[in-house]
Amino acid sequence: MNPFTSNHLTSVKEWGEQTLLSNITKWLDVTNPKLPYGIGDDCAIIQNQANIITTDSLIFNRHFDSNTSAKFAGAKLVKRNISDIAAMGGIPTSAVLALMLPSSTSQEWIHEFILGIKSTALEYGITIIGGDLSQTTQDLCANLTLLGYAKNPMPRKGGQVGDYIFVTGRLGGSILGQHLTFTPRLAEGRFLSEYPGIKACMDLTDGLAKDLNEFISPEMDIQINVESLPASSAAQLLSQKSGKSCVQHMFTDGEDYELIFVLDQTVEVEYFCEVFNSLFSTEITQIGKIVKQGNGNYLDIKHQLTGYEHFS
Amino acid sequence: MNPFTSNHLTSVKEWGEQTLLSNITKWLDVTNPKLPYGIGDDCAIIQNQANIITTDSLIFNRHFDSNTSAKFAGAKLVKRNISDIAAMGGIPTSAVLALMLPSSTSQEWIHEFILGIKSTALEYGITIIGGDLSQTTQDLCANLTLLGYAKNPMPRKGGQVGDYIFVTGRLGGSILGQHLTFTPRLAEGRFLSEYPGIKACMDLTDGLAKDLNEFISPEMDIQINVESLPASSAAQLLSQKSGKSCVQHMFTDGEDYELIFVLDQTVEVEYFCEVFNSLFSTEITQIGKIVKQGNGNYLDIKHQLTGYEHFS
Repeated sequence: MNPFTSNHLTSVKEWGEQTLLSNITKWLDVTNPKLPYGIGDDCAIIQNQANIITTDSLIFNRHFDSNTSAKFAGAKLVKRNISDIAAMGGIPTSAVLALMLPSSTSQEWIHEFILGIKSTALEYGITIIGGDLSQTTQDLCANLTLLGYAKNPMPRKGGQVGDYIFVTGRLGGSILGQHLTFTPRLAEGRFLSEYPGIKACMDLTDGLAKDLNEFISPEMDIQINVESLPASSAAQLLSQKSGKSCVQHMFTDGEDYELIFVLDQTVEVEYFCEVFNSLFSTEITQIGKIVKQGNGNYLDIKHQLTGYEHFS
Repeated sequence: MNPFTSNHLTSVKEWGEQTLLSNITKWLDVTNPKLPYGIGDDCAIIQNQANIITTDSLIFNRHFDSNTSAKFAGAKLVKRNISDIAAMGGIPTSAVLALMLPSSTSQEWIHEFILGIKSTALEYGITIIGGDLSQTTQDLCANLTLLGYAKNPMPRKGGQVGDYIFVTGRLGGSILGQHLTFTPRLAEGRFLSEYPGIKACMDLTDGLAKDLNEFISPEMDIQINVESLPASSAAQLLSQKSGKSCVQHMFTDGEDYELIFVLDQTVEVEYFCEVFNSLFSTEITQIGKIVKQGNGNYLDIKHQLTGYEHFS
């Protein structure tokens, strides 16, 4: 849906800030708690236990476009943040929402966008407790800061030479739909954070080639079993048209929103996979192993291919 | 300072996301705690006690312009949020920063902007524990979400007929400098939140005429002593050129960042003022009283004059 209108009467300009704010508060419905725990004061009082925090933005023509339903765009903003909470092994609790909109933003679009935020918040038990409205000249930006609680937060650093690297789900081709329809791996993340021997975890957002680098120190490399990489059907489809191989898509396409994690080498891999598979329908694949620098193929692959680059 | 450059070599495009991020992390210096409490993982772990949260944005050509020093712009973003914490009677603890920049953003500007954030964070004991970088087409937006701790959070609603309304400092003409150079009324807010009989408090951001409305319910009005309103010298100066009266400037100019608060009618006003004045050099003025609807002049004044309107 086109977020903008040339008709003054159907844009947020016609409403002004007060009406827009009271509409948003109404649309958020039960996801906006009553004061002092919700929208409407200088600060919101945080009601739910929170020990982790993340923030993510969503920008028109960068993270979604005119072909995206406004509801999916709203849902994506919340799910991007939930994916970060999942990567820590946490549960999301409450959020604040900052909207930076041009005055030509359409009333219908912002309504649908907020409904997308609301339904996702409801689904994951998140309350929207505060926010901010500001005006831009042209760009439409939304920013969500999400609080959560993690009993055993999983870091990115922590893997050592000999440890195994796993990934959930399938990789690549997210642009064909997954970047909007993905399910954050929240339950999987919580399970992993409780499982003895999980040493590091993160969510895949900028592509495997770029993101894997977070797991290693300068003296390390990774030996990736390239043949074992789990390709999505979208990656296979894309590779038939893009001139890039399916493997290239798996390494460089952003926004997989899958988890990659490091399993201690002393853990019995088969048993771990059995337990995981008994709990979740989500696939897991061992894609490689941390090795000493000089013994792996990851740094070479990364040198040739890189993931999504911002400010390009 | 102009935030944009036409020279690719001096814009953030030349750096790309990784270099920009590592520079920001370096510039933030000691205000960015070490992992897992700082920047660099999917979420940050919140180290300091926090029970309140606020979020505020800063947009080029809306909240600052090419004439604004980038350091002052960065400081303003942090201080706007601190002012909200002050209005609750809290202390600020930690924050996450989302930057939404066009690729033409100048390296020098973003460096100075972050230094402004850092020095303000240092001054108020705030840590910057996480963030996000995204690319826009044209607008330059920054959003800060600030956590804080308030022992006795002050609401906006709570005043009753007969209660007194006070304001700190002087009003109007903020555009001449106060909107950048203001000191958030943090110590004053903490004192007020501990003083028996303070029933409501907020910070003045959209102008007295609009903001005062937050203190009253439909059956109430306010009797304002218009002659007692404390005019800033900037409001007096502006009124000589703007064609508006000094009183109009005091009612409608935004961004005073002063506190307005409601004192219970049973409190001994003179003693309260004496205690306040013994602690702070900040002026306080009793500007009016909450009355029954029909007995006041505020609703009439508000009808004639309104404060800053977003999306206009």
